[in-house]
Amino acid sequence: MRKQRGLLIVLSGPSGVGKGTVRKELFSQPNTNYEYSISMTTRLPREGEVDEVDYFFKTRNEFEELIEQDQLLEWAEFVGNYYGTPLEYVNKMRDAGRDVFLEIEVQGAAQVRAKVPDGLFIFLAPPSLTDLETRLIGRGTETDDVIASRLQAARQELEMMNLYDYVVENDLVEHACERINAIIIAEHCKRERVEKRYFDMLKENA
Amino acid sequence: MRKQRGLLIVLSGPSGVGKGTVRKELFSQPNTNYEYSISMTTRLPREGEVDEVDYFFKTRNEFEELIEQDQLLEWAEFVGNYYGTPLEYVNKMRDAGRDVFLEIEVQGAAQVRAKVPDGLFIFLAPPSLTDLETRLIGRGTETDDVIASRLQAARQELEMMNLYDYVVENDLVEHACERINAIIIAEHCKRERVEKRYFDMLKENA
Repeated sequence: MRKQRGLLIVLSGPSGVGKGTVRKELFSQPNTNYEYSISMTTRLPREGEVDEVDYFFKTRNEFEELIEQDQLLEWAEFVGNYYGTPLEYVNKMRDAGRDVFLEIEVQGAAQVRAKVPDGLFIFLAPPSLTDLETRLIGRGTETDDVIASRLQAARQELEMMNLYDYVVENDLVEHACERINAIIIAEHCKRERVEKRYFDMLKENA
Repeated sequence: MRKQRGLLIVLSGPSGVGKGTVRKELFSQPNTNYEYSISMTTRLPREGEVDEVDYFFKTRNEFEELIEQDQLLEWAEFVGNYYGTPLEYVNKMRDAGRDVFLEIEVQGAAQVRAKVPDGLFIFLAPPSLTDLETRLIGRGTETDDVIASRLQAARQELEMMNLYDYVVENDLVEHACERINAIIIAEHCKRERVEKRYFDMLKENA
């Protein structure tokens, strides 16, 4: 039986939420069977960094050409250097039936969402969201202004969730990883993904 | 923070697929934290069976009254006795934030799907579906009639999947249970389920 097309898994969330820590923990587990998407950058390789392993290293001209050709799933410029996710690498992996994992900032995730509607978007939520209510209400002695500004901040965090399929609370790195792995297993069992293979097979044999 | 409403998890699939075995394995695991929905029946208790533990035992009159009042999530008559799933019990558990697990026949699952649109429907697929292709093509020596009747049978199995959210292949009971548990964890992380609690909270504190 031919394989399902690989998933594109996008892990994102507000800065400081611990995306990198969770990603490292996921990829340190021996049974992790998805690919970490290698980023592309115009910054120079640091000592020990290997092209096509740590990054795809490109010149500014090459990078800008790829932007023009719409060959980047998402990109941004930081401190004079471009960083981005090459579309070709991701598609090649997915076509080979491999799941690809991106860990990116929310701005990048929004770009990917627009380009890959069947992507799997996981929002890593700050651990402090568990006690959002406590933070909002506080000790009951806060001024209306303080409560209003807390509500405003909470609302902005929540609105960022809007583009995502799942919300994983980063209360404990191990728990967050368990939930992310469960989400990936579940997505592979989604009826729309599974039945397509069977129906295609029936068509071919009809 | 108030709890999510509990999920209604419905495990079903063609007869003979091993639903009962998978359900027993799930409920033998120490970390299973969902409730098995107790069925209602008009048959007499067997030795050792306890009312409200093994079944809710009812008279035919009582059962028929519940049918009329639409108090059964699903029901059927077998060999002169009614069997069904009481709606009140399921709702009480879910309102208390407990996930409720039903293991029922496909006809019953179709009734539940119509009544509980937010239910979580898992189709347990025959292990032989993995080699559906092999079965269809056979040794390449089958007559067109044989292949046509195999296609017909396969199509009927697949059409039963149609009402379900997930398809879990029962290749190995342990694997099937792992996937079912992953699906339940993932469903609790669905953005629509999680964000509602936060938005409700913001509204209350606004």
